[in-house]
Amino acid sequence: MTAHDAIERLREIDRELQLLEHASALLSWDEETYMPPRAIEERSEQVALLQGIIHERLASPSVAELLARAGASPERPSGDPALSESEGAFARAFFRKHGREARLPADLVIELSKAATLGQAAWRGARKRSDFSSFAPHLRKLVALTRRKTECLGYAEEPYDALIDEYEPWMKTSEVRSIFSSLEPRLARFVAEIGAARQVDDGFLRLSYPTDLQVRFASALLSGMGFDGERGRLDVSAHPFTTTLGRDDVRITARYDAGYLKTGIFSVIHECGHALYEQGFSEEIRGSLLASGTSLGIHESQSRLWENVIGRSRPFWSHYLPELAKLFPAQLSGVALDSFYRAINRVEPSLIRIEADEVTYGLHIILRFKLETALVSGDLAVDDLPDAWNREMGELLGVKPDNDAEGVLQDVHWSFGAIGYFPTYALGNLYGAQLFAAMRRELPGMDGEIARGNLAPILAWLRARVHASGATLTAGELCEKVTGETLNPDYFLRYLEEKYRPIYDL
Amino acid sequence: MTAHDAIERLREIDRELQLLEHASALLSWDEETYMPPRAIEERSEQVALLQGIIHERLASPSVAELLARAGASPERPSGDPALSESEGAFARAFFRKHGREARLPADLVIELSKAATLGQAAWRGARKRSDFSSFAPHLRKLVALTRRKTECLGYAEEPYDALIDEYEPWMKTSEVRSIFSSLEPRLARFVAEIGAARQVDDGFLRLSYPTDLQVRFASALLSGMGFDGERGRLDVSAHPFTTTLGRDDVRITARYDAGYLKTGIFSVIHECGHALYEQGFSEEIRGSLLASGTSLGIHESQSRLWENVIGRSRPFWSHYLPELAKLFPAQLSGVALDSFYRAINRVEPSLIRIEADEVTYGLHIILRFKLETALVSGDLAVDDLPDAWNREMGELLGVKPDNDAEGVLQDVHWSFGAIGYFPTYALGNLYGAQLFAAMRRELPGMDGEIARGNLAPILAWLRARVHASGATLTAGELCEKVTGETLNPDYFLRYLEEKYRPIYDL
Repeated sequence: MTAHDAIERLREIDRELQLLEHASALLSWDEETYMPPRAIEERSEQVALLQGIIHERLASPSVAELLARAGASPERPSGDPALSESEGAFARAFFRKHGREARLPADLVIELSKAATLGQAAWRGARKRSDFSSFAPHLRKLVALTRRKTECLGYAEEPYDALIDEYEPWMKTSEVRSIFSSLEPRLARFVAEIGAARQVDDGFLRLSYPTDLQVRFASALLSGMGFDGERGRLDVSAHPFTTTLGRDDVRITARYDAGYLKTGIFSVIHECGHALYEQGFSEEIRGSLLASGTSLGIHESQSRLWENVIGRSRPFWSHYLPELAKLFPAQLSGVALDSFYRAINRVEPSLIRIEADEVTYGLHIILRFKLETALVSGDLAVDDLPDAWNREMGELLGVKPDNDAEGVLQDVHWSFGAIGYFPTYALGNLYGAQLFAAMRRELPGMDGEIARGNLAPILAWLRARVHASGATLTAGELCEKVTGETLNPDYFLRYLEEKYRPIYDL
Repeated sequence: MTAHDAIERLREIDRELQLLEHASALLSWDEETYMPPRAIEERSEQVALLQGIIHERLASPSVAELLARAGASPERPSGDPALSESEGAFARAFFRKHGREARLPADLVIELSKAATLGQAAWRGARKRSDFSSFAPHLRKLVALTRRKTECLGYAEEPYDALIDEYEPWMKTSEVRSIFSSLEPRLARFVAEIGAARQVDDGFLRLSYPTDLQVRFASALLSGMGFDGERGRLDVSAHPFTTTLGRDDVRITARYDAGYLKTGIFSVIHECGHALYEQGFSEEIRGSLLASGTSLGIHESQSRLWENVIGRSRPFWSHYLPELAKLFPAQLSGVALDSFYRAINRVEPSLIRIEADEVTYGLHIILRFKLETALVSGDLAVDDLPDAWNREMGELLGVKPDNDAEGVLQDVHWSFGAIGYFPTYALGNLYGAQLFAAMRRELPGMDGEIARGNLAPILAWLRARVHASGATLTAGELCEKVTGETLNPDYFLRYLEEKYRPIYDL
């Protein structure tokens, strides 16, 4: 069997894995959108069974053998010299995916999955009662299992490397730490500076905005952004998300608040940013494991670039505000573009991450990164977590939770063992600003086009530079290729300064 | 390994098969309801892969061995004498399901599936152009493969036995033939008698009925009938259907016509009848292969009993017409109960089966039964089918299609190889009337309850007598147990006479 034959066989295996993963994704999408309430118990059994079948196929020794025959490795170009560049990229991605799966023993996978189910249930109750102590034993168990997981997976420098690698492949903890160390003081200083300035009024965003009209505006936004409605759809769910159910099936959900206009609009723009990435993989890789975001950081760069950089920009609303005001004349016809622009960009240190503005957001992430690396290294005990949380909130953002529900219990992630995930949110903002700077250099007339409602040049640029290659390039390779340098937080800080100094007259 | 141990192991295998079948059913439900149009191609690959995994597990030699150890057989009680009655019923049902799957060679399954896909596509085009000749080669291929299928499956008396057994387990062609022979002349005579009487006016059903209000009425009907909305839901699709996606997840779809009130209402009642069966299996069998309709004939008895016998009865509308008129005052406030009742029960020989009333419906089925048995036995060549169809339509219903689209090409079934399916529609009417007669004997005050809108006693009776046992009893066993005799078409004919003589003043 030649290396090329091995790749062909691996492509067949991958194709079936993709189909199974998409079937599993449909089960999850349906769970969040249309599933009747009492079906929940069996739904989790259905998902677990499909995941088990996927695991068995992906981790199988025959896949290992085929990868060996193809000469697959984590290097680039990966694989036998006889392979083409695209075969090499495929080999590298499959090598990584198989390796992570094969290194986890079945009993650990099952234990983690059980602890996640119990942990999530316990977290829900604990958050409702704002009682960290009832969640603590579950988190202890999850942290212990997660540590075992890092030992099974292996790591170059420290255990947390093995965790972040799941979401941000090839990224090291030390790199994140170095980036965040540079970011933290500059961000904190800027937040303080804004905090001392006059506040902006956003009262008109909190009037009554009937959701059916919001949905109508959301549809207009989607087509304006270039979302392909023949290959996707928009629904409603409690927590907005984007999911891919097939080559030609990328679905978004949004959440609308009839009493707060921002919630729906910006969740739609955010998720559409994710969806455009998923709809934009090149024909060559569609339907394969390379047709996926190359990292969560890059994925988040797409959602946040659209949501914040484009979707909260003045030219964007110079086109869309009149459209919006047509739907909500009583609420918005007297609101000037400038007031609207300031209102949707109001900055305020707050307790809850998912409600945070783009300036303070990074500090919420840095806090979580500090705490979860300390939990994994053993420097922080679970019992000491709430105090550490509250202390860090005070230091980083100058606010203090009244209780654990709006503090350490606010996020679901840890309760199902997703440790190593949070940094990708902040990396998304950084990648997004850096990509945007490159885009601006190459599309000098961009603001004018946005103000005319023509977003096609932006999508075309993102398609060509970011979306098309999917996971063919790593996040790092992509960043260097498109922007000419490695990830550099200066772009994000500069973007914030240039945007918010005028808003706050600083 | 004891017989009991074998059953336990089979139960585990069955459990996973159920989960996979429900995952596959979700893929199909989504395809008909929410899937974006361009996802269709990959969706069929997803379903085919899951079906392949199901086939492999179900037909596996290890299942055959376990069944042998359990002493499973087609008999009742099936299995080793050490087994309990419920274990025996499980063994019999699994034996049958495995046997049918294992006897079909993989190459035939694949050929049939390909021919079905191509056949359905060709049928769509042929029907649009009303051109049977372009569909004929596909049907020839499907008939040939179907004959090979009957030889693989085996049969007691004639090849068609192997086909009807898929949908109506244990039913023989000779039994169907004997029942239909008794039915045909009596039905034809009655239709002729009605045809000679004055016609009823149903013009007010063809006014404008906005579909959002129809949906509201449909929801009221569902809760009135006892549909459990926590364990199911109602959506819209081009062709109404009911599907089960889990123990606690039974979904209905309906189709509404804003210009014809009957379409939506009766599709909802019909599908709800199916859904109540699926929601009504006893706790003991829920989640196993016994939690399914015991035959399509019995399933259809439930949908038609609700749709026609209850849902087109005078007491039913004496409660629901005022409710309906509240939603559509302009259209219905001047319509008397009697006129409404006559209108929804208008009888008229027509060309299209799915639009047929309950009196002429059986003749549409008898025609198809005659033709498809002749195709399978070789007595009728595919090329002669359109002429045979038109001749039979004239003889049985006294109407003649102008073209193949409203004749031999009207149904989708044959185009994907579903031969042997049609009889179950008529058997449903017969079982339904026979079950209803038993219900009426045991619930003497039933009409009064219906007129008060209290349908709970009917559902309770059906739950206890029909739904709870699922596939534990065969259709024949169930019919005898509940009604005291084997399937007898006299009940249906008597029901028609008693209902339609007054309507048509005969």
